[in-house]
Amino acid sequence: MAEFMFKRMTLIGIGLLGSSIALAARQKGLVQHIAITTRSKATLDRAEELGLGDSYHMDQVEAVKDADLVIVCTPVGACEAVAKTIAPSLAEGAIVTDVGSVKASIIRQMQPHLPDYVHFVPSHPIAGTEYSGPDAGFAELFVNRWCILTPPEGTDEAAIKKVRDFWTLLGSNVDLMEAHHHDNVLAITSHLPHLIAYNIVGTASDLEQVTDSEVIKYSAGGFRDFTRIASSDPTMWRDVFLHNKEAALEMLGRFSEDLTALQRAIRWGDGDTLYELFSRTRSIRRSIIDAGQEVDASDFGRHLKDGESHAPVLNRDNHEYTGS
Amino acid sequence: MAEFMFKRMTLIGIGLLGSSIALAARQKGLVQHIAITTRSKATLDRAEELGLGDSYHMDQVEAVKDADLVIVCTPVGACEAVAKTIAPSLAEGAIVTDVGSVKASIIRQMQPHLPDYVHFVPSHPIAGTEYSGPDAGFAELFVNRWCILTPPEGTDEAAIKKVRDFWTLLGSNVDLMEAHHHDNVLAITSHLPHLIAYNIVGTASDLEQVTDSEVIKYSAGGFRDFTRIASSDPTMWRDVFLHNKEAALEMLGRFSEDLTALQRAIRWGDGDTLYELFSRTRSIRRSIIDAGQEVDASDFGRHLKDGESHAPVLNRDNHEYTGS
Repeated sequence: MAEFMFKRMTLIGIGLLGSSIALAARQKGLVQHIAITTRSKATLDRAEELGLGDSYHMDQVEAVKDADLVIVCTPVGACEAVAKTIAPSLAEGAIVTDVGSVKASIIRQMQPHLPDYVHFVPSHPIAGTEYSGPDAGFAELFVNRWCILTPPEGTDEAAIKKVRDFWTLLGSNVDLMEAHHHDNVLAITSHLPHLIAYNIVGTASDLEQVTDSEVIKYSAGGFRDFTRIASSDPTMWRDVFLHNKEAALEMLGRFSEDLTALQRAIRWGDGDTLYELFSRTRSIRRSIIDAGQEVDASDFGRHLKDGESHAPVLNRDNHEYTGS
Repeated sequence: MAEFMFKRMTLIGIGLLGSSIALAARQKGLVQHIAITTRSKATLDRAEELGLGDSYHMDQVEAVKDADLVIVCTPVGACEAVAKTIAPSLAEGAIVTDVGSVKASIIRQMQPHLPDYVHFVPSHPIAGTEYSGPDAGFAELFVNRWCILTPPEGTDEAAIKKVRDFWTLLGSNVDLMEAHHHDNVLAITSHLPHLIAYNIVGTASDLEQVTDSEVIKYSAGGFRDFTRIASSDPTMWRDVFLHNKEAALEMLGRFSEDLTALQRAIRWGDGDTLYELFSRTRSIRRSIIDAGQEVDASDFGRHLKDGESHAPVLNRDNHEYTGS
């Protein structure tokens, strides 16, 4: 008989992340039984239709019973209520983790309610697409992506190792980080990008002098890149900003300050300032591609999808603009 | 003998746009002779190595001689100098066009210098990648993209039609627009997106509390999408902002105003305002995909490029977040 890492994994919430974990853990043979619980009956039924788990529960208390791994995959704002509800039914020695995009708030929300005899190891897989819901999941979501663990001081080392091994087996690279530092890092790499993407799409759709249909037709000039992340799940993102307020405001303040300087450069025709910024930002993308966190197909390889054209994959170093 | 649309096409500048036009026009058999001129000897030599044209010239005057189609593919800021230089050598009845991302400024820069006996039909193919230089070109760049013509009042109708037909044969959809309106439309669909992408990459690289290597490692959370357009050609983009100042400042002002409102919502914990914006921005992406200006592969189909995973292409309408 196969040796499973966990006998019973309970997923609370079965959206993009929950369903991807279910598919990946099953594919890798890490868990014997997958119990799924979610607030909406329709979503739970859909998860069952998709065959994502072994048992399906409207009752969180029943779902976590005898689980040795519980993964909270709800929006961040729901975590305190979940912790309160499940706490009395958690088995001794159970590991509780989550997939939330903010970490200090989740620790604040959950830790006070969890009994001493369970191990709480918060985690954040930095993986996702713009799609949501149980149909959006796929087993390879975590492959080659980073997952950050932010265990509070004093967390059992064996439990940390087990959670680390779990994510590693799903294909991720795992880092440990202090929760507040995580929240600062993600504020700039994820939260602020989403906020300004949502914002520009909103600004564009409110214009009087340019119609929505013009925005849509001519979006290939750059705008469309922003619409991808601006179509992410609104509940999840509302909660991120409500629960990572300080770091988000700090990064937003810096962004606005820098943007004001650019505005001034445009107003005064200061081409050197614009050129200096526009040049130094190029190297960061090269580093991201080298780090395996991005593809270097030009235009994101969109042309490959058209079925009618093929943009070459280029070695960027040979293609600095040389003028004419 | 084949009937060519133009006997001699002269490309002034041979970067991503110029080289793509050369390849596409040749592939479609639209031109008999392609003359290429560019400021840098190294770039011109590279164009020759790549076999992009039939003749190569360091001298613009020589290059445009006897041309019936001249396409200016330089950064916007170079257009006035080009117009002054080539004007005396342009053949009677020649068509002069360009590919610049701003149009009113280009008309202001070029029209006064061009002789009455040539036809000036400014054009803007809304197509590009983050790569630049003559190696970056590919014949399919214009396929299924829009190209906007902004002929000044009184431009010869036959010349407009010929330029329209040329872009159509390269695969584009062609629209006519008044130059100032074009500049407003592009300010929101292209110029502002580039500006805020450059800006956030700059903000991120200036942080003290988060290292560059953290920004790079964890960029998959959203940041990396911005780095693509923030690695576009700096000279081209400097010139765009210097030459579309009013419209860029107007859109930037609106963007900043909207962002300040979001900042206030975050500070005061106003989840409804955040949710309302985050919801209404989703439909715009759907429209862009429906209009054929974007692929709907999740995560831009990046997973398809990994060679190790396959993200499903989803029907978004079925995947609204349903909560848990």
